[in-house]
Amino acid sequence: MAGASDDVTSSDTRFDTDPVFITHLGGKIEVNATIDVFDNEGLAVAYTPGVGRVSQAIADHPELGWTHTWKSNAILIVTDGSAVLGLGDIGPVAALPVMEGKALLFKDFGAINCVPICLDTQDVDEIVETVVRIAPAYGAINLEDISAPRCFEIERRLQERLDIPVFHDDQHGTAVVVTAALENAAKVTKRSMSQLRVVMLGAGAAGVAIAKMLVEAGVGDIAVCDRQGVLSLDRSDLSDVKRGVAESTNKAGLMGSFEDAIAGADVFIGVSGGTVGFDVIRTMARKSIVFSLANPDPEVHPEVALEAGAAVVATGRSDFPNQINNVLAFPGIFRGALDVGATRITEGMKLAAADAIASLVGDYLDADYIVPDPFDPRLAQTVAAAVSSAAIRDGVIRNPA
Amino acid sequence: MAGASDDVTSSDTRFDTDPVFITHLGGKIEVNATIDVFDNEGLAVAYTPGVGRVSQAIADHPELGWTHTWKSNAILIVTDGSAVLGLGDIGPVAALPVMEGKALLFKDFGAINCVPICLDTQDVDEIVETVVRIAPAYGAINLEDISAPRCFEIERRLQERLDIPVFHDDQHGTAVVVTAALENAAKVTKRSMSQLRVVMLGAGAAGVAIAKMLVEAGVGDIAVCDRQGVLSLDRSDLSDVKRGVAESTNKAGLMGSFEDAIAGADVFIGVSGGTVGFDVIRTMARKSIVFSLANPDPEVHPEVALEAGAAVVATGRSDFPNQINNVLAFPGIFRGALDVGATRITEGMKLAAADAIASLVGDYLDADYIVPDPFDPRLAQTVAAAVSSAAIRDGVIRNPA
Repeated sequence: MAGASDDVTSSDTRFDTDPVFITHLGGKIEVNATIDVFDNEGLAVAYTPGVGRVSQAIADHPELGWTHTWKSNAILIVTDGSAVLGLGDIGPVAALPVMEGKALLFKDFGAINCVPICLDTQDVDEIVETVVRIAPAYGAINLEDISAPRCFEIERRLQERLDIPVFHDDQHGTAVVVTAALENAAKVTKRSMSQLRVVMLGAGAAGVAIAKMLVEAGVGDIAVCDRQGVLSLDRSDLSDVKRGVAESTNKAGLMGSFEDAIAGADVFIGVSGGTVGFDVIRTMARKSIVFSLANPDPEVHPEVALEAGAAVVATGRSDFPNQINNVLAFPGIFRGALDVGATRITEGMKLAAADAIASLVGDYLDADYIVPDPFDPRLAQTVAAAVSSAAIRDGVIRNPA
Repeated sequence: MAGASDDVTSSDTRFDTDPVFITHLGGKIEVNATIDVFDNEGLAVAYTPGVGRVSQAIADHPELGWTHTWKSNAILIVTDGSAVLGLGDIGPVAALPVMEGKALLFKDFGAINCVPICLDTQDVDEIVETVVRIAPAYGAINLEDISAPRCFEIERRLQERLDIPVFHDDQHGTAVVVTAALENAAKVTKRSMSQLRVVMLGAGAAGVAIAKMLVEAGVGDIAVCDRQGVLSLDRSDLSDVKRGVAESTNKAGLMGSFEDAIAGADVFIGVSGGTVGFDVIRTMARKSIVFSLANPDPEVHPEVALEAGAAVVATGRSDFPNQINNVLAFPGIFRGALDVGATRITEGMKLAAADAIASLVGDYLDADYIVPDPFDPRLAQTVAAAVSSAAIRDGVIRNPA
């Protein structure tokens, strides 16, 4: 934060000339009418008295609320400003440019209408009550940039209360793309998922979700580390969430430090913001897979990882190959969920999304191309179709045929 | 409601062929990006890493939240579905088509981005807390279709808590247009506002707001009636709100029934949904002014009122002359308030809006043309300019120059 503040002072006139700031003037989204109203006749259809008949029909037949309003294709993007990008707890208004950006991406890539909600509270109970109360006009909830461990409870309680999907993208969107990338990285290095021994550094929102999903996806073993070392059941300092992770991971029963655990591992996944050196990567198995996802500064620089023996390296940055970018996942996941009236996002739907993303790489699969380009025009549709099918298979749609 | 239900049954296929229902398929509004993102370079400006610099700048300099997000031109339209049009308490989802219609009109007429919030609660405390919590990303709050007397307390408490305008359009939008119409009706019948003795039937949200505003606008006297008769200080059955109305109206000290009060009055304003007969209008002063605003069925049919001696008649309907339509007011009022960063809507701003609306009739002033056409292209700008000036005059702007 000190560095950012150095760049931006109140007397700084770069706000007026910096293209990034100029682009953000007035925000990045708008609400438009989808029908034209030219005259009193048009008013009488779109507004009173015509609209009264539509409202009465919905009151009498609630299912018409899904067809005769925007609800089936409109979602809320909800943040409390507590964990915004790498910036931390910057509050609701400062989070708004990120929420607008997310809304823009949802529309551009998924054709979904998104409304940003930046909450003036960080209390879990208040967040849950507030989102439940404002949900009726929306078909899904995307939680965004809410700090751990509050994000886990908020998502769980909201999903229990609402019959529409509630999805914390920082957790699950990241997990889906990491899973897709790891499926392809395994192929590049001629391993199966079940052969991979994974060690992850970081047990926050993304780390917990990635660990759960990789277990579902069938990795051989995964050890998750926080700053105190491997999450194992003999540790007495674990939160409920970390204890849950320890219970479903670390089949090998590792104990001790991250450095102990990583020795001989096939895969490193960094979601910590820490630093991992050449000497550490060097202790991994031959042809290792290194996903160094801290942004903007990866735990280990890609060139250092390659020099230390990694065969495949991915980061969160667009200026290196293999960017692990949530935009590969969330537009298609929500598109697919909304298309079939899903009531939640299941593990099956997330795995289907990961497989679909991985499949789009096709014959171009290579150490430097394990995930598709975000601008691949097939992307969102392919993911959406897979997610829709999985929702039907899992029986989580509103009106099963 | 019985009539509406008769028109719409679950086996009715008219939903598929009725143009009003077809127009409403999928809703009437959408959220769009205002900037194009074609490639990774564009992503890096609109989203990470570029957006992070904008967010950090807002965290360091909160005033940038008004310039570098959509906040200064985005508002929430909030309802609890308790008093929707003439349909009553139909709940949040059934209210959504009306909120979407309102959003459409705000955009078409006022170039304002509106987000519909349909609340899953009708508890006053919960509504206030919820709206305060979701307000940070928005520049104003339009309350809509919330039943009296809760609407009064909700608006008052929200305005106390928030430093952005909170405006219950059913109250104040109606009051502004009625005031504009009455100014011109007085001219047509060659009276001054101070000469008018007004009798109003109906003491709900609109009635209370109209009474207050007409007092501000300088009418000679106004007596407000509910079903029990004139609101007067000797009545022991009055709510706090009605007692407040009684205190500021009825200088003549009238008591008794509506029929007693209306005899000899210059102006009738109906906002009750009741029925007023030929014989009642006949007892009014010569060249009376009759605003019969119940929708869809006016208290007295315009032709009956004219036959009974009215010189000017207005209704809420578009199929008679002189439609008292809130769309004449709310787009310009919010446009003007947002343009100067107003923190509330004052009485002075409302009176300025009414005067601006009345002035647009100009030389066309006539018994059948006392308010401008909603599609008059000068309307919103003229109202906005008047409202902006009044906000500056009243000292209710965020950053006074």
